[in-house]
Amino acid sequence: MGKLDFKDPVPSDIEIAQSVPTVPISKIAEQLGIPAEHLEPYGTTKAKVRLSALKHLAERPDGKYVVVGGITPTPLGEGKSTTTVGVCQALGAHLGKKVVTVIRQPSQGPTFGIKGGAAGGGYSQVVPMEEMNLHLTGDIHSITAANNLLAAAIDARMFHEATQSDKALFGRLCPAGRDGKRAFAPVMLRRLRKLDIPKTDPDELTPEEQGRFARLDIDPEAITWRRVLDTNDRFLRSITTGQAPTEKGMTRETGFDITVSSEIMAVLALTTCLADMRERLGAMVVANSRAGEPVTADDLGLGGALTVLMKDAISPTLMQTLEETPVLVHAGPFANIATGNSSVVADAVALKLVGADGFVVTEAGFGADIGMEKFMNIKCRYSGLTPSAAIIVATVRALKMHGGGPPVVAGKPLDNAYRSENVELVMAGAVNLQRHVANARAYGVPVVVAINKFASDSPAELAAVRAAAMEAGAFDAVVCWHHARGGEGAADLGKALAAACEQPAKFRFLYPLELSIKEKIEIIAKETYKAGSVEYLPQAEKQIELYTRMGFAGLPICMAKTQYSFSDVAEKKGAPSGFVLPIRDVRASVGAGFLVPLVGTMVMMPGLPTRPCFYEIDIDPETERIVGLS
Amino acid sequence: MGKLDFKDPVPSDIEIAQSVPTVPISKIAEQLGIPAEHLEPYGTTKAKVRLSALKHLAERPDGKYVVVGGITPTPLGEGKSTTTVGVCQALGAHLGKKVVTVIRQPSQGPTFGIKGGAAGGGYSQVVPMEEMNLHLTGDIHSITAANNLLAAAIDARMFHEATQSDKALFGRLCPAGRDGKRAFAPVMLRRLRKLDIPKTDPDELTPEEQGRFARLDIDPEAITWRRVLDTNDRFLRSITTGQAPTEKGMTRETGFDITVSSEIMAVLALTTCLADMRERLGAMVVANSRAGEPVTADDLGLGGALTVLMKDAISPTLMQTLEETPVLVHAGPFANIATGNSSVVADAVALKLVGADGFVVTEAGFGADIGMEKFMNIKCRYSGLTPSAAIIVATVRALKMHGGGPPVVAGKPLDNAYRSENVELVMAGAVNLQRHVANARAYGVPVVVAINKFASDSPAELAAVRAAAMEAGAFDAVVCWHHARGGEGAADLGKALAAACEQPAKFRFLYPLELSIKEKIEIIAKETYKAGSVEYLPQAEKQIELYTRMGFAGLPICMAKTQYSFSDVAEKKGAPSGFVLPIRDVRASVGAGFLVPLVGTMVMMPGLPTRPCFYEIDIDPETERIVGLS
Repeated sequence: MGKLDFKDPVPSDIEIAQSVPTVPISKIAEQLGIPAEHLEPYGTTKAKVRLSALKHLAERPDGKYVVVGGITPTPLGEGKSTTTVGVCQALGAHLGKKVVTVIRQPSQGPTFGIKGGAAGGGYSQVVPMEEMNLHLTGDIHSITAANNLLAAAIDARMFHEATQSDKALFGRLCPAGRDGKRAFAPVMLRRLRKLDIPKTDPDELTPEEQGRFARLDIDPEAITWRRVLDTNDRFLRSITTGQAPTEKGMTRETGFDITVSSEIMAVLALTTCLADMRERLGAMVVANSRAGEPVTADDLGLGGALTVLMKDAISPTLMQTLEETPVLVHAGPFANIATGNSSVVADAVALKLVGADGFVVTEAGFGADIGMEKFMNIKCRYSGLTPSAAIIVATVRALKMHGGGPPVVAGKPLDNAYRSENVELVMAGAVNLQRHVANARAYGVPVVVAINKFASDSPAELAAVRAAAMEAGAFDAVVCWHHARGGEGAADLGKALAAACEQPAKFRFLYPLELSIKEKIEIIAKETYKAGSVEYLPQAEKQIELYTRMGFAGLPICMAKTQYSFSDVAEKKGAPSGFVLPIRDVRASVGAGFLVPLVGTMVMMPGLPTRPCFYEIDIDPETERIVGLS
Repeated sequence: MGKLDFKDPVPSDIEIAQSVPTVPISKIAEQLGIPAEHLEPYGTTKAKVRLSALKHLAERPDGKYVVVGGITPTPLGEGKSTTTVGVCQALGAHLGKKVVTVIRQPSQGPTFGIKGGAAGGGYSQVVPMEEMNLHLTGDIHSITAANNLLAAAIDARMFHEATQSDKALFGRLCPAGRDGKRAFAPVMLRRLRKLDIPKTDPDELTPEEQGRFARLDIDPEAITWRRVLDTNDRFLRSITTGQAPTEKGMTRETGFDITVSSEIMAVLALTTCLADMRERLGAMVVANSRAGEPVTADDLGLGGALTVLMKDAISPTLMQTLEETPVLVHAGPFANIATGNSSVVADAVALKLVGADGFVVTEAGFGADIGMEKFMNIKCRYSGLTPSAAIIVATVRALKMHGGGPPVVAGKPLDNAYRSENVELVMAGAVNLQRHVANARAYGVPVVVAINKFASDSPAELAAVRAAAMEAGAFDAVVCWHHARGGEGAADLGKALAAACEQPAKFRFLYPLELSIKEKIEIIAKETYKAGSVEYLPQAEKQIELYTRMGFAGLPICMAKTQYSFSDVAEKKGAPSGFVLPIRDVRASVGAGFLVPLVGTMVMMPGLPTRPCFYEIDIDPETERIVGLS
């Protein structure tokens, strides 16, 4: 209480963050009851919580599990992260509850590009925000390293296969040791099993078996694995590799995506333990052979090494809010081609740490039609965890946009419609909120609407939002202003949330896995988006057929769709229905464990503007204080 | 004492490393007298020592400063790292001295490729070797991030300049703030000063000044900055970027090198403090303009942001040896296009930590003609530190090679000549050792030869090496076998070293900076390599002229030459002289602070073999123990 000294107008995020002293992370850990042997400090403000804590606490009952989603947003964002942090500051610092915020690690690329950080904002932030927005504890760097080792192994393998006979290749892969004996590495036994070759002694393989084992015969046209960097580098979107004379003309068109879009990030977000991560990383499909069979990381001998590179990354990072409540930061997968949710293990650890009377609040990226749908149907399916309640974050601003207000464009001044009272516009846009509330309720959990208040919102507008939410069946709808007032500003939201968590929840998935790929897509399209029908482009048809043949049809569905509309067209605001949802293509993230129908095109590698925000970023060499991060 | 339980034959490095328990790094820090406020733990076995410790200890006298170099090696390596670690285990754990080992951080790329780790070997190792060979505390990942942000900024800037008028460009670079006023970011004031535009208000610039300020006009043919990854990815050696439609045809041929070859690594190794690093990073020249002027990171607005990305990396990482003596791991620049030495700041901190009676032993990469020459003439010049003694590591094996023995090839069995006594061959090769000893003595420091003993070496062979060393003026020459016996096996070496450090040392550089570029090159070539003359290829002549015109002639020289011969031809063993040394090209690392004459071609991006060592690397999910690292 009273730790924060509120200023009006609210200063910049970094000013607030640097003005509030942090407590040693060891103290935060102690208050949460994390024994020292499960904690790995990284300096004094960050610590990794080892997954061994999960075993240690296995007998303890889980706390209440709350997911935070949002209505269909404006390009400015409606404050989901800030609300996630703010309601936890309320629960922990004002309402006497045990609480852990679970939040995604932001990509470092955009920190230096257009967008600022992702540690919440105003008086509801994770601190130190500089650490949060920079390297943190290196997890994303580990993903870059693992992803690119796998990429390098693909090209190197094709290169070596191109110049060697089956026999020579086999001889090089299984060289004689000092004792003159050949032996398979353990990872090679996996490939033998996959090929149904029931042998473990290299000398017993027939020449035909040697060939099948040694030659992956990757089809260069069917390589889906790309390289990654955690940098906004648009000139790497499409490149030709292998142009040095040493590569003997084996050029290939490929490209780099930003690291957080790597399937390895998706694996990190969904894995449940080290053994599970080992299996998922090994199972990642990187290409097809010329015969049309999937080639995996384990076929390339890399499942173990990738796990070694990711061994520290699997542990979530403990930080704190401005009001000294604990935060776990972990994973930050894209919300289009991946789940857009923080990690299963962070949520699982947090639920044990808070215990039966405590709360874990975790954020789902994008609008709730994307992030929360994936939370429910993918993340909860793999974790076995079930939510006690859902929060939907709404703003007057966004509802006005949905009601027919002029377009909201980042970087341009807001139209007057958004700065003066217009209750009618709010009411016209409320259908968007109402559909999100109904969608969330369909999972069998109580829904609390957080009305994230801006200074220009009028009481009548806020009341209109609340009325619409209640009409749609929300358990409660509460105005909050944690951006300006921290946990104090979200105390009512915290109370409503605690009451909602006492409600009976009967969690259910939207679809069973046994359905066909198309059936699952159509359930999401029709029930969540309210599409009239789904249209499959030829490439999508082809991929659905391929993945079904390969045995991947039983995976859950991870839709890659714009978050700016329920439909595939960002400009269709409000609550469109009856439209035809086009599926352009389908990808498979077999290791992470889902299929990705592509509804639109996505930028997987952002760029830098003429004046990137790095111009302002510097460090005072005396005080070591960072300036210019936003 | 007696901590190590020696086995014969010596087990694998990882077996030994995992069999010896480590002590908490906090205890190592405490024994060294590092106050807690200067320490940032990264788990329990690693900690960063903040540079604030340097200020805290400013009044304390420095310890004895020892550099370890080697004779011209075989491709197997002669044990420089192992000797560096072993002699410290001797000094610290057996001779009661205060000692810090300073060692380079190995690149992660080769860990998964052909070569194993670089944490020493046998019973002389830095532990945990897994941490040392993997991410460690993230410094190399920070370099990857910083290097590639700069690369992305170059292409993005060219892209934006190509489509905008001077006026539009200036307007975008200096947009009006919320108050309608334009302001220069502080980094922009540096560019204005460079351009001799004595103004600080954007509105006061003339259209001509706006153009000069805003348009870097980078010549695509004169971009020297490449991207990097810490992965052995040969297919990235030469690539074409910008092939996506969004880049509008602005394709360009470029490539990736391995991260440790980045100039940012060279900066890290030579910087003295955060303020100095800020200046060096900003001063890095990445290209020339079409008018032939150097374009720097600060011209691109990035000096501050790069420093922010490197703010944690500037602190060395504290680890321990198998015998619990302290180690600082920091920086790992290439020994050809950079200095091949660990960092100035790690040495400086270590010298204060051990105090007047203590020892700091730091390794110089490659043969002493490269690594030690750069230590003396570049590293000591920037640090202001002077060595008390030098160690030259020699092996019977390498001297036999220099005496005319058959080629030594990595991965193939050693010829019998190397496994049976042949004193004559040793004596014939001793000229190589003798020249290295004489070269080291020329810097005015006493030289101790460490004769790194292998099981197959005979007493007569070892005696021959010692005699040759003493004849060349070594202060002492001592047989050691720390690989098999840890510090105990290097106790005599430790004693000899301590005695050498009591000798008067009159340190001097090989050349003054005021000489011309060619004069400096020729002094190194003739005095250290014993070349008869130097030949400059046209490209080298052109670059020497360019750098002289640009005002970079006063920088020290960092030769990029093979370490396998004093000459430019790796096959010329022994002590060749009178040869013509060709200078193919000259590069400038202006931020790091040296010019790089290229004698031969260098592989800046290694590849992966048919069976990379990652096949063996895995982790036990139960014990979390890593297997297969070597």
